[in-house]
Amino acid sequence: MAGSSFGNIFKITTWGESHGKALGVTVDGCPAGLEIDEAFIQSFLDRRKPGQSSFTTQRSESDSVKILSGVFEGKTTGCPITMMVENTSQISKDYSNIADKYRPGHADYTYDMKYGFRDYRGGGRSSGRETIGRVAAGAVAIKLLKEFGLDICAYVTQIGDIKIDRNKFDRDEISRNPLCMPDKDACQKASEYLRGLMEEKDSSGALVECIARNVPVGIGDPVFDKLDARLAYAIMSIGAVKGVEIGDGFDVVTSKGSQNNDQFISGISKKTNHSGGILGGISDGSDIILRAAFKPTPSIYKKQETVNDKGQEMEIEIKGRHDPIIAPRAVVVVESMVAITILDLILQGLGSRVDNLKELL
Amino acid sequence: MAGSSFGNIFKITTWGESHGKALGVTVDGCPAGLEIDEAFIQSFLDRRKPGQSSFTTQRSESDSVKILSGVFEGKTTGCPITMMVENTSQISKDYSNIADKYRPGHADYTYDMKYGFRDYRGGGRSSGRETIGRVAAGAVAIKLLKEFGLDICAYVTQIGDIKIDRNKFDRDEISRNPLCMPDKDACQKASEYLRGLMEEKDSSGALVECIARNVPVGIGDPVFDKLDARLAYAIMSIGAVKGVEIGDGFDVVTSKGSQNNDQFISGISKKTNHSGGILGGISDGSDIILRAAFKPTPSIYKKQETVNDKGQEMEIEIKGRHDPIIAPRAVVVVESMVAITILDLILQGLGSRVDNLKELL
Amino acid sequence: MAGSSFGNIFKITTWGESHGKALGVTVDGCPAGLEIDEAFIQSFLDRRKPGQSSFTTQRSESDSVKILSGVFEGKTTGCPITMMVENTSQISKDYSNIADKYRPGHADYTYDMKYGFRDYRGGGRSSGRETIGRVAAGAVAIKLLKEFGLDICAYVTQIGDIKIDRNKFDRDEISRNPLCMPDKDACQKASEYLRGLMEEKDSSGALVECIARNVPVGIGDPVFDKLDARLAYAIMSIGAVKGVEIGDGFDVVTSKGSQNNDQFISGISKKTNHSGGILGGISDGSDIILRAAFKPTPSIYKKQETVNDKGQEMEIEIKGRHDPIIAPRAVVVVESMVAITILDLILQGLGSRVDNLKELL
Amino acid sequence: MAGSSFGNIFKITTWGESHGKALGVTVDGCPAGLEIDEAFIQSFLDRRKPGQSSFTTQRSESDSVKILSGVFEGKTTGCPITMMVENTSQISKDYSNIADKYRPGHADYTYDMKYGFRDYRGGGRSSGRETIGRVAAGAVAIKLLKEFGLDICAYVTQIGDIKIDRNKFDRDEISRNPLCMPDKDACQKASEYLRGLMEEKDSSGALVECIARNVPVGIGDPVFDKLDARLAYAIMSIGAVKGVEIGDGFDVVTSKGSQNNDQFISGISKKTNHSGGILGGISDGSDIILRAAFKPTPSIYKKQETVNDKGQEMEIEIKGRHDPIIAPRAVVVVESMVAITILDLILQGLGSRVDNLKELL
Repeated sequence: MAGSSFGNIFKITTWGESHGKALGVTVDGCPAGLEIDEAFIQSFLDRRKPGQSSFTTQRSESDSVKILSGVFEGKTTGCPITMMVENTSQISKDYSNIADKYRPGHADYTYDMKYGFRDYRGGGRSSGRETIGRVAAGAVAIKLLKEFGLDICAYVTQIGDIKIDRNKFDRDEISRNPLCMPDKDACQKASEYLRGLMEEKDSSGALVECIARNVPVGIGDPVFDKLDARLAYAIMSIGAVKGVEIGDGFDVVTSKGSQNNDQFISGISKKTNHSGGILGGISDGSDIILRAAFKPTPSIYKKQETVNDKGQEMEIEIKGRHDPIIAPRAVVVVESMVAITILDLILQGLGSRVDNLKELL
Repeated sequence: MAGSSFGNIFKITTWGESHGKALGVTVDGCPAGLEIDEAFIQSFLDRRKPGQSSFTTQRSESDSVKILSGVFEGKTTGCPITMMVENTSQISKDYSNIADKYRPGHADYTYDMKYGFRDYRGGGRSSGRETIGRVAAGAVAIKLLKEFGLDICAYVTQIGDIKIDRNKFDRDEISRNPLCMPDKDACQKASEYLRGLMEEKDSSGALVECIARNVPVGIGDPVFDKLDARLAYAIMSIGAVKGVEIGDGFDVVTSKGSQNNDQFISGISKKTNHSGGILGGISDGSDIILRAAFKPTPSIYKKQETVNDKGQEMEIEIKGRHDPIIAPRAVVVVESMVAITILDLILQGLGSRVDNLKELL
Repeated sequence: MAGSSFGNIFKITTWGESHGKALGVTVDGCPAGLEIDEAFIQSFLDRRKPGQSSFTTQRSESDSVKILSGVFEGKTTGCPITMMVENTSQISKDYSNIADKYRPGHADYTYDMKYGFRDYRGGGRSSGRETIGRVAAGAVAIKLLKEFGLDICAYVTQIGDIKIDRNKFDRDEISRNPLCMPDKDACQKASEYLRGLMEEKDSSGALVECIARNVPVGIGDPVFDKLDARLAYAIMSIGAVKGVEIGDGFDVVTSKGSQNNDQFISGISKKTNHSGGILGGISDGSDIILRAAFKPTPSIYKKQETVNDKGQEMEIEIKGRHDPIIAPRAVVVVESMVAITILDLILQGLGSRVDNLKELL
Repeated sequence: MAGSSFGNIFKITTWGESHGKALGVTVDGCPAGLEIDEAFIQSFLDRRKPGQSSFTTQRSESDSVKILSGVFEGKTTGCPITMMVENTSQISKDYSNIADKYRPGHADYTYDMKYGFRDYRGGGRSSGRETIGRVAAGAVAIKLLKEFGLDICAYVTQIGDIKIDRNKFDRDEISRNPLCMPDKDACQKASEYLRGLMEEKDSSGALVECIARNVPVGIGDPVFDKLDARLAYAIMSIGAVKGVEIGDGFDVVTSKGSQNNDQFISGISKKTNHSGGILGGISDGSDIILRAAFKPTPSIYKKQETVNDKGQEMEIEIKGRHDPIIAPRAVVVVESMVAITILDLILQGLGSRVDNLKELL
């Protein structure tokens, strides 16, 4: 198991490398009868596509998706849906000068140790392009969840020290600005910060938040398949994520029980949402809230110290095409993984009560 | 799938409720020939046992473990190892007055919604006692990892605002003090803080850190089964954990690529360890470092507002026996889950190279 | 993964050895709200219990089951159900003289090769007593399926050359005679045949048939999780089974398309049932019919040639307590595995259609 | 989970329909460093390709395979290998007259019931073309197993009443004749039989045998993941298979323990091989032998009675392009599934002994 599958019922398997022929995904277990087409999937892929702004790599991939199976006359058939994006702009020679060097912050060294050699053309399998498959699958999950009223929205809340002002939160702004920040002013400041870093041939980390609304109560399983555990798994599996938190997250460390407990009020709902919408691993009907910390792009133009595959120390200068920040293009990846996780647990839990089953059979 | 299993090759299945007859675990896929006995398992269970200090519930369970299968003449046989702890001190009547009320911060409401009714005796399946199974299984994993030189150690680094001083770090202190803090002075301050909270009938959150040393390079799989993703999954599945981070964790948000990238030096090793020992989801030979945020114990003696299962608002006073802090008893749970995760991925990756296979077959 | 789990949603994990402390099973994913108690489970275990007739081993185990978790106030809670049977009659010394010899037809040699040593007390994990866990889990599955009108019935149709006469088929007879044959006369002849074999210190193979009635149309998934594929997996995993067939089974080899195709008639049903109730891996509404070939008990009193663990040839005389035939006690194991497989696929397929989901959420 | 994946470590996921854009497979978990190219894969696909003889459909598909990922500079990289075959000859109109009719012996009715509608163009997902993915994956598995000396060979032993003569067994003949029979004379008789059936617009069933040689002792796990159980699962998941048996198979019913037990002789090997190379679910070093019963092609030109999707009775005449027999083209599918199963269990069991692990880590 090289670990390329995620999910138990709504199960996705991604495949492909940054400089291979194509990348894609197979979605197995999608319910039959969902209307879906390539244009809808494409609209999600376009959000992570390179070349959209001065803050993203200028690699000019159209990332056009083809649905190869599982959809018939505009509807899912219940059979595996395979979606493929062909690589068209693999300039492998960009990477030839670093074929035997280990780029700091990258998986070059660990792949070499694990597999005995590596695909030195860009990140290979560990490239951010792997998320193409996640986003295509996520689009399907999101389409299905929307039919049940669920709404999933991610955005960047912090870049370096620049945080959004919660009072200026404007959802429409997220898709309007290149940094996917829901606060125009913060976006402007962050843009200046990033331009400065680009001049220094450097890159920045960022914080992404995601909210899932209208998640029914009862999603998630008590022990290892807790909704929060599965979300942490899903989000931490995105390259570059170094931390995940739910609800109040790391702030609970300094909190007290009397503050952190959300009181129930008649309805039944909760007065506050410190729990981030999850109690005992099961959705409690409030908004699901999570945050993910993205590390700065490891590929920087600055000269760095490293070793080659013989262990000899040397300098490395990474050419090619890199983003000064990962998070904005990853926002749709976070939404996708959250949707896939929630949908999978919804399907996994359909038979949790005998009385429900009686209605079904 | 009620999600009671974890792991692909070294697979554990926990079972049992806080007030049922017994709790336990089945470990499937443990290699044959490992020396193990009940005394060794017991020494791990004793670390999470209640009644050890003034900061833990006075429920007097001996938590004595029995190995029911999978061990013959002192060695594992390769067959499933089932370990059981019988409940002996279930004072169910403590809970009778809250049978129809939803305790804030607890899973009462979500279980009721998911399953149509709930085991109202204590936390049932969502009780911290569920971790007995994890710790018994973790003891087996740790025993095996030790044979290969791995060392896994967790401890509390922060309670409320009180943090350990890294300069005073004393590993021996961890097992010496009731709060599992590797800094005696911090422990003393935290003890005072906790005593104050207990007087206020309140509870505190805390931060737990875990370090795994001597993990071979090459553990973890590239995409969904990244070592960090599986660790996040494992740790977030522990009740009360609201956040997980690896290496620099959430600090990467304000970091730059040039700072965050660890330079390789001849050896091959890394000058720094911002990555927390994982690159591209695969162990890089440095220490694996992770931190988990534990929320304050939701069961507090303070009167709280809530609703009953008919949605009527009312007050609730939780009696029974509760810890004012969860983290110290959870330290061994964190070690266990980290060990299980690493061991599972080691076993999962044994066949990653054809040349290794040639030696094996 | 030592492969002790079966099922994806209704997932069972069995554990225990013939001469260890106990054997049992954990059932994870059982829907909440099913009425179940130890007496019901026991009634199934009693059907496979030793010592019931002159054709079963005289090992006097009561095989009393305890439910350790997952049931509260007489109903399943949705949490894992662990059921345990303690071994009380392990006469290990019976086996001491064969500790280093490989019994022909047994797993002694293969276990030794795989694990480096073996539990030489009886079959260890490969003993027929492992099926205790399957039957306890099967009882739960059968109880649930009965709520939806499903009826599963297995019986012995052939022992040696003696076959039942289909015209004399009497379902009540199955539980009345020690050989579980639905034809009294055939049972009598088979009894004589077996008595003869016992005098010769030999044993017999047999054929078991199982019919599942009222299985809804639409159970099973198209490719690898075909209902028939999962049933073959389930049945062949029972020790001693060497063949499985569905519907006309091996007779299709000599059949023609025009004979083997079942014509649909208005209803919608099928005129015939050559398919054994499964088309394209999915239940078609007719009776599910399968047959399993059980090999003769490998433990026979006759002197046999074999080798010891040093490869030296020698004679072996197996003492202990053995059945001259396996199949009659396995009938309830077959029913159990069929029930578990069907229930698991029912639960796995609940979300196969978007329109069904809309009713559920 | 629509059940399109098979295997735990060497995990394949097939996708595609008979009349969609493409079919294919993703192989996850293949060890890195295996030399493989499209030509090798193609040589396996050519064995199941249509249009090779008068006994196979004249649909003229070239079934040209493309490797889209997971292979770099001629070697597997450890990352998922996706292989695709584009459909080029989908004459959908052939099927338009039967779009609302349920073909006897086909999955039309069951798909319609399960998913609410069906892809009426040919078999859709239940078409034999689905096995393209299995064969491409099987080629990879067989290539790897060959490196360790394993040899897997399947062939047709019976068509209708015509059986091969074991004394005339000629392995070279298998690839030489269109019916994949290892006996030239039997092939000739069977050819005449099939020509007769074709004139009658009918089809025939057949028996396929598969032998795996040089399988190391110790492959397979004791309980549910027995090698024989996984093989039965794998083989029964091939459309049209109605029965599977291992070693003596159904003949054990009339056998006695003294006959059926294989005596061990110094070596250590077995004097006979009634067990078919598997004891207690674990390979015993002898040849693995299994047989599968293939039903007659359900698509026959003969007029048949059936119903439409409104339940109205009517006649159906199936046009299109059909084979009068399934088995010869399925021979390579059987080899593929056997190879995938064995390889998966080899990889799954690498960590079965602590002492082996010590050598590895």
